[in-house]
Amino acid sequence: MKRSQLFIKTQKQAPADEVSKNAQLLIRAGFVHKVMAGVYAYTPLGIRVLENIKQIVREEMNSIAGAELIMTALQRPDTWQETGRWSDDAVDVWFKTKLNDGKEVGLAWSHEEAIVEMMKQHISSYKDLPQSVYQFQTKFRNELRSKSGIMRGREFVMKDMYSVHTSQEDMDGYYDKVIGAYKRIFDKLGIGDKTFVTFASGGAFTKFSHEFQTICDAGEDTLYVNSEQTIAVNEEVLDDATAELGIDKATLKPVISAEVGNIFKFGTEKSEKMGFNFTDKDGSQKPLYLASYGVGITRVMGVIAEMMSDDKGLVWHTNIAPFSVYLASIGEVSEHADKLYSDLCGAGIEVLYDDRDVRPGEKFTDAELMGIPYRLVISERNMESNSLELTNRADGNTEMIPQTEIVNILLKKTNS
Amino acid sequence: MKRSQLFIKTQKQAPADEVSKNAQLLIRAGFVHKVMAGVYAYTPLGIRVLENIKQIVREEMNSIAGAELIMTALQRPDTWQETGRWSDDAVDVWFKTKLNDGKEVGLAWSHEEAIVEMMKQHISSYKDLPQSVYQFQTKFRNELRSKSGIMRGREFVMKDMYSVHTSQEDMDGYYDKVIGAYKRIFDKLGIGDKTFVTFASGGAFTKFSHEFQTICDAGEDTLYVNSEQTIAVNEEVLDDATAELGIDKATLKPVISAEVGNIFKFGTEKSEKMGFNFTDKDGSQKPLYLASYGVGITRVMGVIAEMMSDDKGLVWHTNIAPFSVYLASIGEVSEHADKLYSDLCGAGIEVLYDDRDVRPGEKFTDAELMGIPYRLVISERNMESNSLELTNRADGNTEMIPQTEIVNILLKKTNS
Repeated sequence: MKRSQLFIKTQKQAPADEVSKNAQLLIRAGFVHKVMAGVYAYTPLGIRVLENIKQIVREEMNSIAGAELIMTALQRPDTWQETGRWSDDAVDVWFKTKLNDGKEVGLAWSHEEAIVEMMKQHISSYKDLPQSVYQFQTKFRNELRSKSGIMRGREFVMKDMYSVHTSQEDMDGYYDKVIGAYKRIFDKLGIGDKTFVTFASGGAFTKFSHEFQTICDAGEDTLYVNSEQTIAVNEEVLDDATAELGIDKATLKPVISAEVGNIFKFGTEKSEKMGFNFTDKDGSQKPLYLASYGVGITRVMGVIAEMMSDDKGLVWHTNIAPFSVYLASIGEVSEHADKLYSDLCGAGIEVLYDDRDVRPGEKFTDAELMGIPYRLVISERNMESNSLELTNRADGNTEMIPQTEIVNILLKKTNS
Repeated sequence: MKRSQLFIKTQKQAPADEVSKNAQLLIRAGFVHKVMAGVYAYTPLGIRVLENIKQIVREEMNSIAGAELIMTALQRPDTWQETGRWSDDAVDVWFKTKLNDGKEVGLAWSHEEAIVEMMKQHISSYKDLPQSVYQFQTKFRNELRSKSGIMRGREFVMKDMYSVHTSQEDMDGYYDKVIGAYKRIFDKLGIGDKTFVTFASGGAFTKFSHEFQTICDAGEDTLYVNSEQTIAVNEEVLDDATAELGIDKATLKPVISAEVGNIFKFGTEKSEKMGFNFTDKDGSQKPLYLASYGVGITRVMGVIAEMMSDDKGLVWHTNIAPFSVYLASIGEVSEHADKLYSDLCGAGIEVLYDDRDVRPGEKFTDAELMGIPYRLVISERNMESNSLELTNRADGNTEMIPQTEIVNILLKKTNS
């Protein structure tokens, strides 16, 4: 994309009312636009990061036989009354509104009940199982405070997956597969080494659920981690979990972290409440086993913005960067720069081409603030030596690359 | 995808309360799930059609330098008060709700004002222009009646694009480019020959807007079309438009049609109300020229379901079908069928593989109801002759294809 086709202007200062680092950076660099506290639009830069994150998650969900679908935001009260979760006393984040005929409807803050309600119409026999479905869906949560930027939104995007099984063993086996898929996701997002599978509070069916927690100063949780970093426990269940695991609390050290995923076994609890049963091989009716698996897509983008940034701005991992290369033309080289841009795009490299008539410093500052992994400079001086200046955003290293080799070298560096 | 991994069961009967043909068919075939009138979830089959339609639209919007972004559903009153459109008297389809602190917010039924409000923060000079942005976004409209299935939803997906220009000439030129892109879109969707650029009612800036109307019995509009099919006029502006064009009303014949797109020049009207100005070359401040361009994504899927179906079910065009091939295995051939499925997938062909242990007739009926373009049957008898039975859903023709040629022939037929 040419920078002249991108309406974005970067900003030196973040809005005064924006206290979170992730939103400050993302607004200044032009990735998000704040509509109100906890409600952000995603510009052409921002949506590219979101879609890259979604695609990484999608591939892993597909790899464990998940089927993508899309539910609705508008929710009927009766779907949620079956489990007692329509009440504002039980769930304090509902946004509710009314149809023109006066009937009350809600905006989905979760889709657990909605998924069960739909699947009940299709699944009736052990032959229909197991099943696993997921979606990337906007959730609406009427949070009282919303000061964490895109890490805690009133309107945000979540990947939520639901699996349905005839037995606890089958559910447990799939649950473990999801843990594997989640680990691969966080590795590909570049935060695998700082993300822990964490014991957290459970529900009626299991004593513990599992959270995926990433070490991050802006997080809202405290984890206790052992020195080998093989065990992590959320503070909220520290006593219970250490007793269960038979380990000494004193061997665990606290760290601040942010939840990026949560996986949960409902067992038969929700199925029993909602009458979600199947006919087993022997003809008997039994309640189904359910589990749910979430990743906060916009949240994880916020966590990454918090973690992977420096005093110059954002530093995206090549797997999720909006563009791999920021091509800055300096001086009267537009014909050569246009040709280079066309060659790079032709090779499948994602390039943001700064074709604007502005000072070089402005282009360099933007490239850094936006966190594009590689900055490629084409100037009159470089043209004379038939080489181009390539700078790595993460480590700041600059090398001169012969023009004839630039496509191959960038293909290699960016895994395009 | 294996049918056993698809939780969907097709239905012989549509729900009694569903009067529209598109929703009846789409529910029976398992593409959508009705949550309430005008509110539908899209199953793994339905979302594939939607995403195929979106991708066709996306490519055309990108080809005319549109930049994709994503706005928010939640809207601040002040954004819409500037143009007087927050009021329920001015706009009768608002869903409104409240934040926890009591402040009123709305659910976006359009994003015109929201886009202007965001762009105002970035665009200030003639150097920043022109710009064109678009999104695929859920719209919420509190319709009093909602009996047209996914053709008229309370919650639906729209592609809306907005272009910003320094002059009327620039706007007019881009507007014509969009007409070209839209024509290509409807051609690729398989409804180009039945879709007309139609004179429709305008606004403060222009006498007429342009609608893209598709001849469809389930439509809500009446068009008047000339015998050469080069001129189409919406009934609502028949007198004005025929006078303007200097043609005799009697030469136009009425047809029932459904609106699938609407494009509109605001000119400077909205910019003036919202203070969206730019500094021109001479240093003067001027209001910007705006135009907007919509395609109802879910609506167009409904129109296509209405038009492209027969007494056996849906008949999808290969460009948007959820899968290109329905592979039905009959008898004890699972090993060969698995291998064939794997070969077809490996070649990039999208296959729904019915691996279930059910009667052949059930597989055939489902393949037809779902409207998958090609049905491929592998049976013991076919195996003996080393050939496979391939049936075209649209014309019902069946041919026997040698096994060794099946991948190449399907690649050709489905343009995979």
